[in-house]
Amino acid sequence: MAFEQRIRSSFAKQGLMSTIGASLTLVQSGVVEIELKPKSAISQQHGFVHAGAVSAIADTAAGYAALTQMPAGRGVLTTEFKINLVAPAVGDVIIARGKVIKAGRTLTLAQSEVFAEKDGQRKLIALLTATLMSIEGRDGISD
Amino acid sequence: MAFEQRIRSSFAKQGLMSTIGASLTLVQSGVVEIELKPKSAISQQHGFVHAGAVSAIADTAAGYAALTQMPAGRGVLTTEFKINLVAPAVGDVIIARGKVIKAGRTLTLAQSEVFAEKDGQRKLIALLTATLMSIEGRDGISD
Amino acid sequence: MAFEQRIRSSFAKQGLMSTIGASLTLVQSGVVEIELKPKSAISQQHGFVHAGAVSAIADTAAGYAALTQMPAGRGVLTTEFKINLVAPAVGDVIIARGKVIKAGRTLTLAQSEVFAEKDGQRKLIALLTATLMSIEGRDGISD
Amino acid sequence: MAFEQRIRSSFAKQGLMSTIGASLTLVQSGVVEIELKPKSAISQQHGFVHAGAVSAIADTAAGYAALTQMPAGRGVLTTEFKINLVAPAVGDVIIARGKVIKAGRTLTLAQSEVFAEKDGQRKLIALLTATLMSIEGRDGISD
Repeated sequence: MAFEQRIRSSFAKQGLMSTIGASLTLVQSGVVEIELKPKSAISQQHGFVHAGAVSAIADTAAGYAALTQMPAGRGVLTTEFKINLVAPAVGDVIIARGKVIKAGRTLTLAQSEVFAEKDGQRKLIALLTATLMSIEGRDGISD
Repeated sequence: MAFEQRIRSSFAKQGLMSTIGASLTLVQSGVVEIELKPKSAISQQHGFVHAGAVSAIADTAAGYAALTQMPAGRGVLTTEFKINLVAPAVGDVIIARGKVIKAGRTLTLAQSEVFAEKDGQRKLIALLTATLMSIEGRDGISD
Repeated sequence: MAFEQRIRSSFAKQGLMSTIGASLTLVQSGVVEIELKPKSAISQQHGFVHAGAVSAIADTAAGYAALTQMPAGRGVLTTEFKINLVAPAVGDVIIARGKVIKAGRTLTLAQSEVFAEKDGQRKLIALLTATLMSIEGRDGISD
Repeated sequence: MAFEQRIRSSFAKQGLMSTIGASLTLVQSGVVEIELKPKSAISQQHGFVHAGAVSAIADTAAGYAALTQMPAGRGVLTTEFKINLVAPAVGDVIIARGKVIKAGRTLTLAQSEVFAEKDGQRKLIALLTATLMSIEGRDGISD
């Protein structure tokens, strides 16, 4: 799909995703997954994955899920998100699954569920809802 | 202050803060500031500082502002936050200023304003509100 | 079920639900639905159902969904909610469907989807996530 | 001011504000206050003012604060809000004070503080942040 290539290229430009060690593992129409391996470089003070790192992959998954449904040449910006953190982010891998709830011309609502997987078992650790804005022809933003 | 030392020690244990290059620049009763220098290692796809990095320092500033007002030995966990991103995170430095809005026995509400400073001028780029939970004697959490 | 009777009694004590004309239409373990008929008495300035009325039924549905999973004698209070309003609240009936996402000892995360039904077709108009606190023996709160 | 008359006319069209007994008590550039007298008709099950009624005046105050800074002929819609409820809504009067945080061409961020006043003392009971969208020439929306 054209959008998959577009999103993979865009993800590769996100310095933060590389810095925290996040991988883009699924890109489908309206659904994007990003994974992160827990390690001390992304921890908070108790050794769990930092809420900021969890939020970063959840926001990014929501944003790219929204971008899959925007016309080519459009860019996406997060205008707001809220995240509820319901369990400590510990496990073998942390997976954020973003999906579009309602795509609009200017604003799109997306939601990301974040799971911690341990020994093959997934547990919900966070839920994010985000508003994404479609941007055209502004400051060269196109992804 | 006892709380300042406690918070500086706790901050030093946050791998993510070190990884993204954040500094703890102010610790007062009810108010904490954290700064971050923009660089490509923490960018999103358009070259701005990633919303996840902005959220990480804003959440951390809010959490430590709350911790300044909790009894020694208590730990703090974020249960939820919401952030509105009102302008691109670009500038010489990004500053998150967290302050306590309402301290409670179990839950504390804190807010962080995030500013981008350029040529000595500060501009609001984001506003976060967070609920922090005071934790005692659970899993060895004490900061 | 014991919880159904408990929730129906509690709902009947909510003056606001009666004032805006809301009905409790479904009570199951972890799921509660509340309906509202659009009328000028609950409108905003453009004639749509007011976001405050939409929020009121969505918050109440989320709260009672949480209460279905708390021990008898516990009361429930909303500590925060966020609602995204994705389409105007117009139609034959507005339906808020609250469900529990994660039940905890102190805090429960619940979510409400709000639909507008017109000519038998349902359309999502809002999405709410709420944190509910379980209260025991405080100020006589028991529902 | 032209905007004051515009907002007073718009408020008068809000059926919900009249139904719950809310009054528009202050309209200034970027700041709007709305008051509500506690009574059983707007209660939740414990006798406090319902979070839905608190949210309704807080959202409306935020929305009109935003509208004071939009060009004449523009309408305002709430796209999302989050509210933290930090103390029970009880007292002689509940006051929502909305103010603009950042006015934009399409989206405006506003915040409302909600106070309960008892015996002349004000106490913060809730804090709301809302995103308001400026609408032009759509479905006759002009306030």
